[in-house]
Amino acid sequence: MANDNLIAPSILSADFARLGEEVNHVLAAGADIVHFDVMDNHYVPNLTIGPLVCEALRKHGVTAPIDVHLMVKPVDRIIPDFAAAGATYITFHPEASDHVDRSLQLIRDSGCKSGLVFNPATPLSYLEYVMDKVDMVLLMSVNPGFGGQKFIPATLDKLRQARRLIDESGLPIRLEIDGGVKVDNIRQIKEAGADTFVAGSAIFGAGRDEDANRYDSVIAAMRDELAKAG
Amino acid sequence: MANDNLIAPSILSADFARLGEEVNHVLAAGADIVHFDVMDNHYVPNLTIGPLVCEALRKHGVTAPIDVHLMVKPVDRIIPDFAAAGATYITFHPEASDHVDRSLQLIRDSGCKSGLVFNPATPLSYLEYVMDKVDMVLLMSVNPGFGGQKFIPATLDKLRQARRLIDESGLPIRLEIDGGVKVDNIRQIKEAGADTFVAGSAIFGAGRDEDANRYDSVIAAMRDELAKAG
Amino acid sequence: MANDNLIAPSILSADFARLGEEVNHVLAAGADIVHFDVMDNHYVPNLTIGPLVCEALRKHGVTAPIDVHLMVKPVDRIIPDFAAAGATYITFHPEASDHVDRSLQLIRDSGCKSGLVFNPATPLSYLEYVMDKVDMVLLMSVNPGFGGQKFIPATLDKLRQARRLIDESGLPIRLEIDGGVKVDNIRQIKEAGADTFVAGSAIFGAGRDEDANRYDSVIAAMRDELAKAG
Amino acid sequence: MANDNLIAPSILSADFARLGEEVNHVLAAGADIVHFDVMDNHYVPNLTIGPLVCEALRKHGVTAPIDVHLMVKPVDRIIPDFAAAGATYITFHPEASDHVDRSLQLIRDSGCKSGLVFNPATPLSYLEYVMDKVDMVLLMSVNPGFGGQKFIPATLDKLRQARRLIDESGLPIRLEIDGGVKVDNIRQIKEAGADTFVAGSAIFGAGRDEDANRYDSVIAAMRDELAKAG
Amino acid sequence: MANDNLIAPSILSADFARLGEEVNHVLAAGADIVHFDVMDNHYVPNLTIGPLVCEALRKHGVTAPIDVHLMVKPVDRIIPDFAAAGATYITFHPEASDHVDRSLQLIRDSGCKSGLVFNPATPLSYLEYVMDKVDMVLLMSVNPGFGGQKFIPATLDKLRQARRLIDESGLPIRLEIDGGVKVDNIRQIKEAGADTFVAGSAIFGAGRDEDANRYDSVIAAMRDELAKAG
Amino acid sequence: MANDNLIAPSILSADFARLGEEVNHVLAAGADIVHFDVMDNHYVPNLTIGPLVCEALRKHGVTAPIDVHLMVKPVDRIIPDFAAAGATYITFHPEASDHVDRSLQLIRDSGCKSGLVFNPATPLSYLEYVMDKVDMVLLMSVNPGFGGQKFIPATLDKLRQARRLIDESGLPIRLEIDGGVKVDNIRQIKEAGADTFVAGSAIFGAGRDEDANRYDSVIAAMRDELAKAG
Repeated sequence: MANDNLIAPSILSADFARLGEEVNHVLAAGADIVHFDVMDNHYVPNLTIGPLVCEALRKHGVTAPIDVHLMVKPVDRIIPDFAAAGATYITFHPEASDHVDRSLQLIRDSGCKSGLVFNPATPLSYLEYVMDKVDMVLLMSVNPGFGGQKFIPATLDKLRQARRLIDESGLPIRLEIDGGVKVDNIRQIKEAGADTFVAGSAIFGAGRDEDANRYDSVIAAMRDELAKAG
Repeated sequence: MANDNLIAPSILSADFARLGEEVNHVLAAGADIVHFDVMDNHYVPNLTIGPLVCEALRKHGVTAPIDVHLMVKPVDRIIPDFAAAGATYITFHPEASDHVDRSLQLIRDSGCKSGLVFNPATPLSYLEYVMDKVDMVLLMSVNPGFGGQKFIPATLDKLRQARRLIDESGLPIRLEIDGGVKVDNIRQIKEAGADTFVAGSAIFGAGRDEDANRYDSVIAAMRDELAKAG
Repeated sequence: MANDNLIAPSILSADFARLGEEVNHVLAAGADIVHFDVMDNHYVPNLTIGPLVCEALRKHGVTAPIDVHLMVKPVDRIIPDFAAAGATYITFHPEASDHVDRSLQLIRDSGCKSGLVFNPATPLSYLEYVMDKVDMVLLMSVNPGFGGQKFIPATLDKLRQARRLIDESGLPIRLEIDGGVKVDNIRQIKEAGADTFVAGSAIFGAGRDEDANRYDSVIAAMRDELAKAG
Repeated sequence: MANDNLIAPSILSADFARLGEEVNHVLAAGADIVHFDVMDNHYVPNLTIGPLVCEALRKHGVTAPIDVHLMVKPVDRIIPDFAAAGATYITFHPEASDHVDRSLQLIRDSGCKSGLVFNPATPLSYLEYVMDKVDMVLLMSVNPGFGGQKFIPATLDKLRQARRLIDESGLPIRLEIDGGVKVDNIRQIKEAGADTFVAGSAIFGAGRDEDANRYDSVIAAMRDELAKAG
Repeated sequence: MANDNLIAPSILSADFARLGEEVNHVLAAGADIVHFDVMDNHYVPNLTIGPLVCEALRKHGVTAPIDVHLMVKPVDRIIPDFAAAGATYITFHPEASDHVDRSLQLIRDSGCKSGLVFNPATPLSYLEYVMDKVDMVLLMSVNPGFGGQKFIPATLDKLRQARRLIDESGLPIRLEIDGGVKVDNIRQIKEAGADTFVAGSAIFGAGRDEDANRYDSVIAAMRDELAKAG
Repeated sequence: MANDNLIAPSILSADFARLGEEVNHVLAAGADIVHFDVMDNHYVPNLTIGPLVCEALRKHGVTAPIDVHLMVKPVDRIIPDFAAAGATYITFHPEASDHVDRSLQLIRDSGCKSGLVFNPATPLSYLEYVMDKVDMVLLMSVNPGFGGQKFIPATLDKLRQARRLIDESGLPIRLEIDGGVKVDNIRQIKEAGADTFVAGSAIFGAGRDEDANRYDSVIAAMRDELAKAG
């Protein structure tokens, strides 16, 4: 990955009728990584997409990292399926596994990079004994699985804490943020410590016609803001 | 619907990277209805696609009936979501609802047609008191959610029993079959009583390139077989 | 019990702020038995009242039979609690216990009369091997736990089937009906085989002021209709 | 509310056969707020009372705040029901929701005040990221749902910690205590930081006859003790 | 197997401190098959023994068939473990699998013989569409997982029905009975149609010292009774 | 117990066909305490042994402490069963009980010593308010229920933290370690703070023939290492 800051469009906001094309456009427009939201109608009240859709993207020629966020409970059974389907990262919520260390290990043993996701109210203490087993920490700045929410401001402090934990570990762990990220707050989020930015409607909402350039301009605007960050 | 016999390609075998195009091709090739398999990684050990994908097909211009088969448990929460997403039929497994009559009613109250799905071992007795509340009976001729299975021959007898129950009711209930339906057994299945035929790999497996005509020839072959049925 | 036909007001429609008084009024007005609806927010999407409320009625001097309908899952843990709280009958849904025979036995061992409840779509085949272990069969003529429903007409046929099974058994089993019972359909329900009639809003809705005579007139009207039954 | 220290009788110890009268008596005797214990036979091994009973109190003319403590799991489905039934506060256990931030938000969006309840062993770290979304912190000084327990002394230290967190936040958050509160320990509990005191048998046990003055004298004795607190 | 009637001691009544010896003694005393009761503290309120114990018997030199009765829910995950541990038969309760046909197939695919177990109240209708996929039908004549029960007399009729279904199928399916089988009722049970007889305390209770001959005499008495059956 | 350092062979690695003999041998060889691993196929994907096996050891004459590690969820129902079966310690995972304080109290009320078990990723904060209610803290140095794992090095730091918490409490709480303990790392583990050492294959793997002396030599080697610890 050429960029230190990764922009990760969430395909939940893409057009599922022509998903391969959408993903290719958004990558061509400068996105770095594909964010893939998996919901099972149990951990969250919604059901989205599973391994078959991930596999279809790979068969369609997508070579960018695919960052699978599991909003499912439990998690272990489906991890190997996503690994086989071409996932790069697989992240899950610590509350959704009785055996967090084992689930992280299972992800790595399956050849993927592993991560933990923190709901807005979830303490970072779940990281304490597994810092060396995560490649990504994902902080939710909205509640996953529910629509129409804004960026929760308290997440900025939580980002600073997570950044400190990561820096203290000395490990190359990504700090990702998901929920309400837009052009006008991405700089602030970056300054709080995030280096990987999920954006759904902010990107796909802009370009919902045949013109990929619209994605382009949003992503460019985000990069501009990121470049200004202290 | 012009055809008494409906051919229902399962989009689980389609290319999810260009699903709108696939569905349009298969409908242009003569399919009548889109079969939409929803798995939640709880009722079956797999997770597929949810309401957002259904909605995307409608926005893409698909006007054919969409026949949503819920392999989820429980079912009530997600029924209104699929109705809002454009489902025509919504069917579920009676074991997956504590309140079968109520779930059927909920489907109809949401503006859709309702149905019950029977696993290979599930008795038809679940139909006894709700015959007037179903628009479709779906018999599984394989176990849902598990790959690589063949048509279970005992389903032919079960089809005959279901056909008799439907005919005795005098109600316009569709009798659908799902699992291992191919050109070389569709006639026999039709003769046992089915009038709606789900086929996945048999159809999409044939045409997995840009050439829609391949779908065409499989569907035509199926129609030929159906025409020969006694 | 003096009456062959038992009228069982459901206290779910009573005023919970003065429940003892309400129950005494309705019994004074001619009701035979108190119907007590227990919901746990799991088996049905509602939570109502538990053993403490049953016990309070007994301490308040209610000596009529209390007929506890468990809409809970699982059932075994709470059965002894209701027995200790003064329940006369305890009925449950067969789908809500993994061990139906054992749960029935547990009710009797706790000193109560036992029964099975059938949802509108539930087959009567659950009775087949436990006919000698039930004192009551309760047919739901609406879906339990959901408001605003009408009597489901197909229940009349189901009542006839249940009546036949009971008569063939030669056992003194009550056949109770619950859901949408009113003055204008109680005769027809009686003729289909029921002998115990749950009514909630039909009774309590009539008398919701200080005048107990209103309960009186509804119950009297119900008895008149029952007397006309063939 | 006129009092800085709120006395909250738990209606679980009241007479459910004449609940409206009991609640009015106890409020007339000087109680500030009605504590309403909801158990679902899943999160705790007991089933108590639900929204209908809350609504009945409102219809009976109770205007004091009603403080609903949900001992249910999960919590989201029943929150709007209690809001519609007239609840003032709705509190829940963080372990009982997969999405604590969202459940707190749902309570406020429903027009109620929100809170988190901490079992004796539950760490206060669940508060860390939602301090601005709670109106009440409830510490259990017994294990909820199990009878016959005494005040757990270690709760005093936990109260001090919670008080410090609340004071540091600068927010007007109530600190409530529930379990084994009596005249002879309420002062000590107050001094440890509580400002809202649930008492069940201590209050209702004293006055279980027609004489409301008995409630009066217990509540007065509690207020005397509270006035002595440093 | 040399005997048409198989005697199957349940090792649940054996001495688990010297299980290999117990099993060898009882087989030497004339038993045909080892009945292995697996409980998971979920499907039944008890936890017994798992695959490791089965494997230990095989390593100890037990070559007789081991008949594993799964009182667990769900069943699919543990089936391959028992197959690998040396099980001959694996039977399960149809209510404990969402996919009965698939679970039966999984047992056979794992190299074992398959069967369904019927609780006292469970209808035989679960057999209807899988008769060709079962090698054994096990009728419970007590409720599994609860101690101190007697043979339920209604099981005799159910045995006759099961016998008829098996005979009509023309398939070599074993009909096993479990619960309260003793010397003084085994003949009657045989006459009702059973051919495989689980006995626990009746056998092991007799021989609980070093004298294997005691097992011998009970088993011999059972065979005598079986020989008298019409 | 004569030894300050307790060696606790896990019987999961013993020969279940002659368990009483194995346990006696290993105790004769110098082991102090019997570690008893209970899995329910729900909290972990495995099912092992339950109360009956514990009881058999007691009847076989085993008088050493039996240390029951519950890998089950939930825990309360089975606690009295293990107490009645002769358990000395009963430990459980805090995530497996909704009411940790109450479960600990239940263990003590049943006459046993109580403890909490920490998975590799589980924070020690669960101890914060129940330090006075635990007799043992068990740190898992592998993920329970999964085979073939090595000692997780990060556990050494966690041991030091747990040791500090225990020392600060001034209470006589055992600090046990389970997973990958061998002769060549036991000294280091001791130095990090553990005083009770579970070892399975390290001990039983050495002696898996008739020669008890092999157990002897492993245990002696472990004691030698422990004696060298600083």
